[in-house]
Amino acid sequence: MREVAVIGIGQTRVEEQWNKSLRELAGDAALAALRNSGLEHVDAVYVGNMMSGSANLQLHLGAYIADWIGMRYSEGLRIEAACSSGAASFRSGVMAVASGQVNSALVVGVEKMTDSPSAEITSELATAADADWEAAQGVSFVALNALIMRRYMYEYGWKKEDFAAFSINAHANAVYNPYARFHEPITMESYAKAGMVADPINLMDASAIGDGAAAAILVPLERVQAAQGIPLVKVAASAAATDSIAIDQRRDPLWLKAAELSVKQAYAQAGLGPADIDFFELHDAFSIMAALSLEANGFAERGQGPRLANEGEIRPSGRLPIATRGGLKARGHPVGATGMYQIVEVVEQLRGEAKGTQVENAHIGMAQNIGGSGSNIITHILRTV
Amino acid sequence: MREVAVIGIGQTRVEEQWNKSLRELAGDAALAALRNSGLEHVDAVYVGNMMSGSANLQLHLGAYIADWIGMRYSEGLRIEAACSSGAASFRSGVMAVASGQVNSALVVGVEKMTDSPSAEITSELATAADADWEAAQGVSFVALNALIMRRYMYEYGWKKEDFAAFSINAHANAVYNPYARFHEPITMESYAKAGMVADPINLMDASAIGDGAAAAILVPLERVQAAQGIPLVKVAASAAATDSIAIDQRRDPLWLKAAELSVKQAYAQAGLGPADIDFFELHDAFSIMAALSLEANGFAERGQGPRLANEGEIRPSGRLPIATRGGLKARGHPVGATGMYQIVEVVEQLRGEAKGTQVENAHIGMAQNIGGSGSNIITHILRTV
Repeated sequence: MREVAVIGIGQTRVEEQWNKSLRELAGDAALAALRNSGLEHVDAVYVGNMMSGSANLQLHLGAYIADWIGMRYSEGLRIEAACSSGAASFRSGVMAVASGQVNSALVVGVEKMTDSPSAEITSELATAADADWEAAQGVSFVALNALIMRRYMYEYGWKKEDFAAFSINAHANAVYNPYARFHEPITMESYAKAGMVADPINLMDASAIGDGAAAAILVPLERVQAAQGIPLVKVAASAAATDSIAIDQRRDPLWLKAAELSVKQAYAQAGLGPADIDFFELHDAFSIMAALSLEANGFAERGQGPRLANEGEIRPSGRLPIATRGGLKARGHPVGATGMYQIVEVVEQLRGEAKGTQVENAHIGMAQNIGGSGSNIITHILRTV
Repeated sequence: MREVAVIGIGQTRVEEQWNKSLRELAGDAALAALRNSGLEHVDAVYVGNMMSGSANLQLHLGAYIADWIGMRYSEGLRIEAACSSGAASFRSGVMAVASGQVNSALVVGVEKMTDSPSAEITSELATAADADWEAAQGVSFVALNALIMRRYMYEYGWKKEDFAAFSINAHANAVYNPYARFHEPITMESYAKAGMVADPINLMDASAIGDGAAAAILVPLERVQAAQGIPLVKVAASAAATDSIAIDQRRDPLWLKAAELSVKQAYAQAGLGPADIDFFELHDAFSIMAALSLEANGFAERGQGPRLANEGEIRPSGRLPIATRGGLKARGHPVGATGMYQIVEVVEQLRGEAKGTQVENAHIGMAQNIGGSGSNIITHILRTV
């Protein structure tokens, strides 16, 4: 297996981009990544996207985007794993380059959600749940997460306000990220006053959807050397695991089994453990998911995720910085693109380019993307060479 | 790069399977492939599917199907490349095993189309065309192919009846394939009388949609030995290339450039040329596509594809048998599953299990799956070890 390096990154701002089509968004991020890499051509284009078939009436994004960015004739595939489509496409790129089948790959995550009415988007997001056993009952994604959060509060004795620190950290960090959807810091007061979405999840617990694209360029590590002044970044681990889609089918709805399994593989591949991770871009689609992620990945005891947040350890200066560029909560969550934003943000940190929220001595970063309510969890560890 | 073996295959019959859900179809093929391989567990499940998000209101098929077949916790991804989603998922499985990231993979192509009204299916198929430049103009897939066929007839002087031999061969072969949608042979007379769909494409030029699933099990070649009496099959080549999605963007609408490029890579990987291919499962979604495929892959001169058919060389006893189990035309074309049916049928031939249409001395078989009107073309060469 060849080792794989990430030599270019690009992204668009997450927002309501009504003036940009799906291919323009993807193209902007993809071309920025190409320029950043110095390459002019790639062998393959892998696209992470969840809902373009229904939201944009366009499938076949591999060929569609390859042609748009001037890579007509290259390989082009789309990879989908609900909200973990971004990481799924990155993993596909990593495997393609590692296999020797492909010598350069562009991976781009893209989602254009705000052209559709919000009721439609809620239905489209529900296609990540089980059509027969969940969606047909009328349970939306936020409702599923609300059930999990309520049970968590009951089991471990946390109050709703104990989750505020996750959102406050995310918004504080996003202020410095020009690509984030929100640049407004929030306080405990604004958290407490926020409108309820599905009790106990309020607007400040939930990530915002948006339009956006993020991209990276992958090549075999053996073929590149570090450019002057920019640390070279390699993929130290890539791993994926699933769980049941329907939450009621799980033995323990408060434990992200797929995260535990995927990070276990990732730690083994990289020869590392939780203590070696300098920062962690986790999947805070809802604040409860941030808490559960810290636990399943070995950073907090079971039921103790919120403690890390309330002790300030998740800030850029803390023991385990998370959501360092705003996370899903404040950078925004264009679902199929999110996993690629996480990868781009990890590379920014490792290169020392995370202006305003740079983690000191960041050499090893982890990204974890979740599809469904913990049904598909994909973990990547990147490190400087 | 590790070499990859195909050690199990499974399929359902292509038909209107109203009594089976999407996961049941995929599960039936997947479990048949597992039983055929002797394995009880796989590291990863890769699903090829085009339109389940809109046709079945279910995305996230990787986790969804993995759980259904008892592989909860394995990796699970869906790969989409319009009608070439099947081959795209197979290629993803090949790269995953070749990379060393995965030691066993189940690849299943599945599509459940007949629950939707046919007008909806036409719209859903149009998401493989360019939403802005083609579909928005009201051009359906069959209309695009009719334009190509008409131009081809004009340029090279063929009559409509000259394409009949492709469909007659496909239907003759499907009679012997228990998994084919149609078991009725057709004649020149029934071809000539068939109802027109989009002039000059009539019902006998066009493949039928359907519900179906086909699956294969992949492992590193180095880890298996041939079972007694069953030839071991390995993947000798895997290659993919794209072209513009919109046909008007191409210099030559009568040449499958992506087929030429992908087969060139495949021949190079396998160290083979057209003369070495014992049979060819090509993408005869329309009879014109069969003709163009023979040309772009080096089996016929430009404009001379129909000659091979009319000389009888495409029959199981001919120089280059095609559609040996019925092809898209008569086995049926459940779009995202088709590429995996082709792989399964190639393995049947190589193992000597193609009862009724067995190609003699079949040691090297090629499968080629097309997404859109030649926009995404994926080629695999399989051979006995």
